[in-house]
Amino acid sequence: MGYLASMRTEAKSSVLKRLKRIEGQVRGIARMVEDDRYCIDILTQIAAVRAAMRRVEDEVLRDHVGHCVEHAIRSGDAEEQRAKIAELMEVFARAER
Amino acid sequence: MGYLASMRTEAKSSVLKRLKRIEGQVRGIARMVEDDRYCIDILTQIAAVRAAMRRVEDEVLRDHVGHCVEHAIRSGDAEEQRAKIAELMEVFARAER
Amino acid sequence: MGYLASMRTEAKSSVLKRLKRIEGQVRGIARMVEDDRYCIDILTQIAAVRAAMRRVEDEVLRDHVGHCVEHAIRSGDAEEQRAKIAELMEVFARAER
Amino acid sequence: MGYLASMRTEAKSSVLKRLKRIEGQVRGIARMVEDDRYCIDILTQIAAVRAAMRRVEDEVLRDHVGHCVEHAIRSGDAEEQRAKIAELMEVFARAER
Repeated sequence: MGYLASMRTEAKSSVLKRLKRIEGQVRGIARMVEDDRYCIDILTQIAAVRAAMRRVEDEVLRDHVGHCVEHAIRSGDAEEQRAKIAELMEVFARAER
Repeated sequence: MGYLASMRTEAKSSVLKRLKRIEGQVRGIARMVEDDRYCIDILTQIAAVRAAMRRVEDEVLRDHVGHCVEHAIRSGDAEEQRAKIAELMEVFARAER
Repeated sequence: MGYLASMRTEAKSSVLKRLKRIEGQVRGIARMVEDDRYCIDILTQIAAVRAAMRRVEDEVLRDHVGHCVEHAIRSGDAEEQRAKIAELMEVFARAER
Repeated sequence: MGYLASMRTEAKSSVLKRLKRIEGQVRGIARMVEDDRYCIDILTQIAAVRAAMRRVEDEVLRDHVGHCVEHAIRSGDAEEQRAKIAELMEVFARAER
């Protein structure tokens, strides 16, 4: 089967589930704001969404390394490998380190 | 007018707009995953949502300080002031510092 | 005894000990670089110093709140209290959140 | 010339300079604590050291990728390449993301 530069099935369904939950959490925070809930309670929920998004990022990243970067290694194509490394370095530079 | 321990109108509408946009962005990321888009492009959108959530956190926090913490200062109630400070320290300890 | 806007004795000696250790760790990393040690081992030590500096920051911050901010609360001086809150918000905005 | 799994000359001297400066900054913070300087001024210097350490980390990481990871790519050794990628992922997981 040819190489598909996208997420593997298991990671894909897990990430979709996480994103669905996060979408609901964001809507929930909006309701709290509309209902004039106490700011600190709202901040607690915001922190939960931030943590959840970080876990989604980690999962997509791990799947990418195990799949797309692995494919570049197997291909033996040095240029492709360099491109993959450069992409990873960009993701890390941008991440809230 | 009595003190309402919730967000002020201007911050409230701004935060609600941000949350609506973020909700849409999260749905957009889910579509990218479903459409087998390249992982690095997905990671780029995830980073954008993480940054947007941080800005929502900052806005709620600033409004809280200018409103609820300010109210505690005006009240002259030392216990209330201590409680507000303790809450702020918790928010910061939890934030991805 | 008048209020001294500096760290309390216990926190002061603990923070000084931490800083001494960190100073030694930084010298140790320099030696690793001079000795051409493997980059990943150097990065591991850098991460340790970063975590240690964060703990020093937390300790100074907690002592500040329990001492200087508490003093402002007891003084009943609303302007002083506002100044303390504004300082805290600056520290948090600057922290790698 | 054989491959040396350590930093390249230019990066090495730059990182050593940075570490020397940071060592001095840490000693300077200790003096501020000993001299009972105001906590917020101490926190400002701590934030400066934290930022400086992050720049050292970035520089060592970039040099590692351009040197050791590049060597693994050129070697064509898939196992060596996988090991390098795994090391990078560990560095990022540990970084204050």
